[in-house]
Amino acid sequence: MIDWKQVDRNAQDWIREAGERIRRALSQDFDIFTKSNKNDLVTNIDRETERFFVNKIRQTYPGHQIVGEEGFGDDPAELGGVIWVVDPIDGTMNFVHQKRNFAISVAVFENGAGRLAYIYDVVRDELYHAVKGEGAYFNHRPLPKLTERPVEEAILGINPTWLVKDSPGVKECIIPMVKKMRGTRSIGSAAIEIGYVAAGWLDAYISLKLSPWDFAAGMIIVEELGGKATKLTGEPLSILEKSSVFLAKPGLHEKLLETFLAAYQGI
Amino acid sequence: MIDWKQVDRNAQDWIREAGERIRRALSQDFDIFTKSNKNDLVTNIDRETERFFVNKIRQTYPGHQIVGEEGFGDDPAELGGVIWVVDPIDGTMNFVHQKRNFAISVAVFENGAGRLAYIYDVVRDELYHAVKGEGAYFNHRPLPKLTERPVEEAILGINPTWLVKDSPGVKECIIPMVKKMRGTRSIGSAAIEIGYVAAGWLDAYISLKLSPWDFAAGMIIVEELGGKATKLTGEPLSILEKSSVFLAKPGLHEKLLETFLAAYQGI
Repeated sequence: MIDWKQVDRNAQDWIREAGERIRRALSQDFDIFTKSNKNDLVTNIDRETERFFVNKIRQTYPGHQIVGEEGFGDDPAELGGVIWVVDPIDGTMNFVHQKRNFAISVAVFENGAGRLAYIYDVVRDELYHAVKGEGAYFNHRPLPKLTERPVEEAILGINPTWLVKDSPGVKECIIPMVKKMRGTRSIGSAAIEIGYVAAGWLDAYISLKLSPWDFAAGMIIVEELGGKATKLTGEPLSILEKSSVFLAKPGLHEKLLETFLAAYQGI
Repeated sequence: MIDWKQVDRNAQDWIREAGERIRRALSQDFDIFTKSNKNDLVTNIDRETERFFVNKIRQTYPGHQIVGEEGFGDDPAELGGVIWVVDPIDGTMNFVHQKRNFAISVAVFENGAGRLAYIYDVVRDELYHAVKGEGAYFNHRPLPKLTERPVEEAILGINPTWLVKDSPGVKECIIPMVKKMRGTRSIGSAAIEIGYVAAGWLDAYISLKLSPWDFAAGMIIVEELGGKATKLTGEPLSILEKSSVFLAKPGLHEKLLETFLAAYQGI
């Protein structure tokens, strides 16, 4: 029998401690490396922070599995048991260029169902979190349930880079949708942008391709508040694969899906 | 003879006081109106804040002129004398939807030359400011001079909405430029985005159309740090007209201008 209140306390303690370490590291030099391409950045701080979480989780919960961006976790093929999904620094480009506007993202799943979720904006010291079935919070103050918003009054979180790519569905679906909405924003951290959806500051968020650690925590938080989280095809998200991501207020999600995304053919 | 140190003190006092009033107003209901179109929002707080500045400036400096977004100032046709350029709330859409990520922007010009500039992120309590010839500051700590950045490592501030419009120059100039750069960001307040350029957190900022109150303070701050501020055509900006706006780090500005913007035909 898992003591979920204790898991919650541990997760919050570890996130606070990791946040303090990152803030200290920001005042010193750090090493920047590239991964899959020249704009896919990683630093020694990303790696050290993921190792910190992996060590804590393995020491405390040896039976749990871990999915982490930097590869120090496991590579579970199935959803059974408890899985932690950890992004030590979501928004590494902001971390490198701005030293702000990045987040730690941690989600805990049990047999595929989200139980706990945390998005911690490290420099702002702002925590979005959710306990499945109990509520979602911004800095520990309860967030209200999400309510409907008309398409033409909705603000969308989207990385503008998607709008200039020739990816399938951009011209046919995404651009007409953006034209119809009130405005668009891009902070440069998917986790924080999804946190903004949870807080009601953005009405929807889309990406044509994210990894599970980018959206896992945000998905749980937004769903806890009555929002919807799917792929751009409307299919359920999986924490075992990369895919497109589409989160929105209730009503708005269905409306955008039927009006603009019905023909979406991407992943 | 103008006591510019006293003007600086007054401006900072008034901005702090206006900021406190706005923060108090955020906890109460406010009225939202539309202006030129359904997404051009204004609230009673925008109007009351501009009136606050206009009253303070007129009482203290009756000979000065004022250019303000909400129309309570003057409508100077020439640049002679002292002109205050005031945006009481830059990012009104954020103010309405997010209650954050908006700024007070104030700039003071003498015979057309920028003397003092302030961008105040009200909710974050973050002030970007410059005293011409003396330096620029973030929260009163001196900002370092801006240095060069290669195009392919540069992050651009741009409202994604521009990328889906059929405005002249978008397909020919702006989209190819965005494709070449490392990334794009959009906070939804031109003043804060230009503040980010001053702080080095963005490398360049463009808009196809802004009003003087949106860019006047940012232009002074970025130029004080060695950055360049022009129209997208490369021509000088004027605080008496709307135009496109293009600010960037030194070197990067020239490079983007010659590589991507030489054929730009807009305003």
